[in-house]
Amino acid sequence: MLDEPLQEAEAEDGYALEKDLFSSVRLAVAAGDKVRMDALFSGLHPADIADLLEQVDGGHRREILLLAGHLVDGDVLSELNEDVRRQVIGFLPDAAVAEAVRDLESDDVVDLVEDLEVPEQQAILNALDVADRVAVEQALAYPETSAGRLMQRELVAAPEHWNVGDAIDFLRSNKKKLPDQFYHIIVVDPAMRPVGYVTLGRLLASKRAVPLTEIFEESFRVIPAAQDEAEVAYAFNQYHLISAPVVDAQERLVGVITIDDAMNVLDEEHEEDILRLAGISESNPSDGIVATTKRRFPWLFVNLITAILASMVISTFEATIAQLVALAVLMPIVASMGGNAGTQSLTVAVRALATKDLTVSNIWRVVRREVLVGLVNGVIFAVVMGAIALIWFGSPMLGVVIGVAMVVNLVIAGLAGIVIPVALEKAGADPALASGAFVTTVTDVVGFFAFLGLAAVILL
Amino acid sequence: MLDEPLQEAEAEDGYALEKDLFSSVRLAVAAGDKVRMDALFSGLHPADIADLLEQVDGGHRREILLLAGHLVDGDVLSELNEDVRRQVIGFLPDAAVAEAVRDLESDDVVDLVEDLEVPEQQAILNALDVADRVAVEQALAYPETSAGRLMQRELVAAPEHWNVGDAIDFLRSNKKKLPDQFYHIIVVDPAMRPVGYVTLGRLLASKRAVPLTEIFEESFRVIPAAQDEAEVAYAFNQYHLISAPVVDAQERLVGVITIDDAMNVLDEEHEEDILRLAGISESNPSDGIVATTKRRFPWLFVNLITAILASMVISTFEATIAQLVALAVLMPIVASMGGNAGTQSLTVAVRALATKDLTVSNIWRVVRREVLVGLVNGVIFAVVMGAIALIWFGSPMLGVVIGVAMVVNLVIAGLAGIVIPVALEKAGADPALASGAFVTTVTDVVGFFAFLGLAAVILL
Repeated sequence: MLDEPLQEAEAEDGYALEKDLFSSVRLAVAAGDKVRMDALFSGLHPADIADLLEQVDGGHRREILLLAGHLVDGDVLSELNEDVRRQVIGFLPDAAVAEAVRDLESDDVVDLVEDLEVPEQQAILNALDVADRVAVEQALAYPETSAGRLMQRELVAAPEHWNVGDAIDFLRSNKKKLPDQFYHIIVVDPAMRPVGYVTLGRLLASKRAVPLTEIFEESFRVIPAAQDEAEVAYAFNQYHLISAPVVDAQERLVGVITIDDAMNVLDEEHEEDILRLAGISESNPSDGIVATTKRRFPWLFVNLITAILASMVISTFEATIAQLVALAVLMPIVASMGGNAGTQSLTVAVRALATKDLTVSNIWRVVRREVLVGLVNGVIFAVVMGAIALIWFGSPMLGVVIGVAMVVNLVIAGLAGIVIPVALEKAGADPALASGAFVTTVTDVVGFFAFLGLAAVILL
Repeated sequence: MLDEPLQEAEAEDGYALEKDLFSSVRLAVAAGDKVRMDALFSGLHPADIADLLEQVDGGHRREILLLAGHLVDGDVLSELNEDVRRQVIGFLPDAAVAEAVRDLESDDVVDLVEDLEVPEQQAILNALDVADRVAVEQALAYPETSAGRLMQRELVAAPEHWNVGDAIDFLRSNKKKLPDQFYHIIVVDPAMRPVGYVTLGRLLASKRAVPLTEIFEESFRVIPAAQDEAEVAYAFNQYHLISAPVVDAQERLVGVITIDDAMNVLDEEHEEDILRLAGISESNPSDGIVATTKRRFPWLFVNLITAILASMVISTFEATIAQLVALAVLMPIVASMGGNAGTQSLTVAVRALATKDLTVSNIWRVVRREVLVGLVNGVIFAVVMGAIALIWFGSPMLGVVIGVAMVVNLVIAGLAGIVIPVALEKAGADPALASGAFVTTVTDVVGFFAFLGLAAVILL
């Protein structure tokens, strides 16, 4: 039943893998038809081959590799997610893996080996040329998720005194050694410190005699090698960078980061945020049951504790509920509305913190707004819910109680939704990871306490 | 109290606006010091000026514009969010706005005018050269959020018979007319259909006599002008494109999309997903109270209805609760655990649908996994919670009831968390927008029904 519509959706968008491909691969594997397999894979981009390997199950993946392992090159390995990649590398002969990585740029090799165990890592490093190996080892010396890990060593630099003709002659005579993709020539001083850069478009459009220093791009930013990759991605997105030179602590040029890698980081950061907001540390569709259970368990455990806390609030009002069971019927509504309003505020806050749109200059204005929005929505829903409670249970005072509790909880939700993530960010924690638990605890506890407490005072 | 730590965080990352800047601007505005203002803004990237204008309140923004309106150029306008931009354009004289947009690439002009009212749009369009105006009007004829709207008209194309020398001569003699940024020369056939492209790096490294057709990039993709921008962003990220030619229905070259625009779309799509999962249609930190209330209200209203539905389930067990108030104390725990487990599953599903990692080839495997993960976590938490209930209320059977209800609800949560978003995607709805409401309704209803129903049967 589900197959049909998904297939349609694929036909619409065009970039998802076609269903036919999976059946064709299955047939080729069953027939042991290497030629057919070659034909099937040859039309695919490495990223698509990687997606295919990720989407099939482990057993079928091994069958495919047995028949088509020689088609898995470095580009395919780069595109695989960590877990599947480890499995594929473990399955392929060491020599094949070494051969596969030899043509990769240094940043891709780093990305590939950084998660491997030491023996596997060594096997790959040993297969590289000395120069490449040194480059990769130097990159691995930078902290994980730093610009130093993200950058590639392959770049084109030119001294300050060169003119356009010098640069063009250099490019023509070093054809073989140029990076696969490059968009700028980085101009450096004698101490190898970048002083500006020239786009290839500008270079091509200029006369040979023009000095490079005269056609520098206006906007020029260097990235410190120690900078976190999330910051790098932010800078690329904010300043529309295409590539940027990376410098070490002495401000010497050590590499270059290109926008496709920054885009990839941006995508991963978003994935992290979205999953963390839902209480999951990481996730791959190819994960097994054990891995998935482990990744879901911790947040559910935290939630159990917060839910028990809320239950303890309820239990202090057992006598009240025993006298008026309608309270038990209505109390989840107050808590649920608060939880949702709080989640709205905190999601906006987490996102604004990530995009640096929530700063000292506007924090108090945003807090004020969240509280007032909670008040306005609280009053509206208080009236609606008060009326419903009146009609349902025929008690005007019950309507008043749920209305007041609703206003209180929605105001607190707005406040908690902004203050908690900001405080977590201040404390150095990731607001996306922990805010949800805190905010819903607050709205549950406040919701039950306000509603049942008011009921105990007013109704009984 | 909050100022301090946020300021520290800024010093760490370096890309957020400095607190000092805001006070300096405030002082310059108070003193009416145009020269100081020029100095402050001249060191800022247009994107940072835009952020500054977004982060101050409406009144202060007008004061800044009064003093520094002449510093707001087209690049700054492009970077502003829609609401603030509308305010700024409304405040600046028409002539200033027209002057500001004149230097923009066509895609930026389109982005800028597409959300304006017709008279304001006309005022800007009339200020453009005829050729530019026609380009913008043609782009506006494509559907919103299509590749046609995203692309720029400015590009460099070459006929198939050219060699490297022809291309370089063309670039040198058309210096003034070249796009600000370009990375490829697109080679077209006599009917203007793109047949391949050449990177500038390749062009620079090749001898003048080499035909362009011999140095084509291996991977070459054209984007249909009608394609949705979300698909375009996916293609750039998946295939590491830097720029891609856009073609009309007759496959003729009509424009080019560059990766910085695609990265921007990817960022916006993520923002949309993350906010929609929390039940908000859109959000800007600069939004006022009325706008924010309106954007939060609909989802809270949906949530009210689903919460009432859950309450109706509870009310059918009023008699049961009246006999055993402990049920009222414990029932939110079952619902809350189900809601959280369901949210975990649905977030993974929504994300996997967005990255095309959830397809016909693995849907049943993923469904099976979610159900089994729900079962495993359900059993673990059943044992924990059963024991707690036993200790708390001294009733072994109450422990059994909450344990069984927990297992049932977590299995259903896993199932609903994957099936609902997939079904919504199939129905053409955005799974990020509506899944949350459906899934928590299911887990609330199932949670309360399983727990109270079992209690009614077993305990009473």
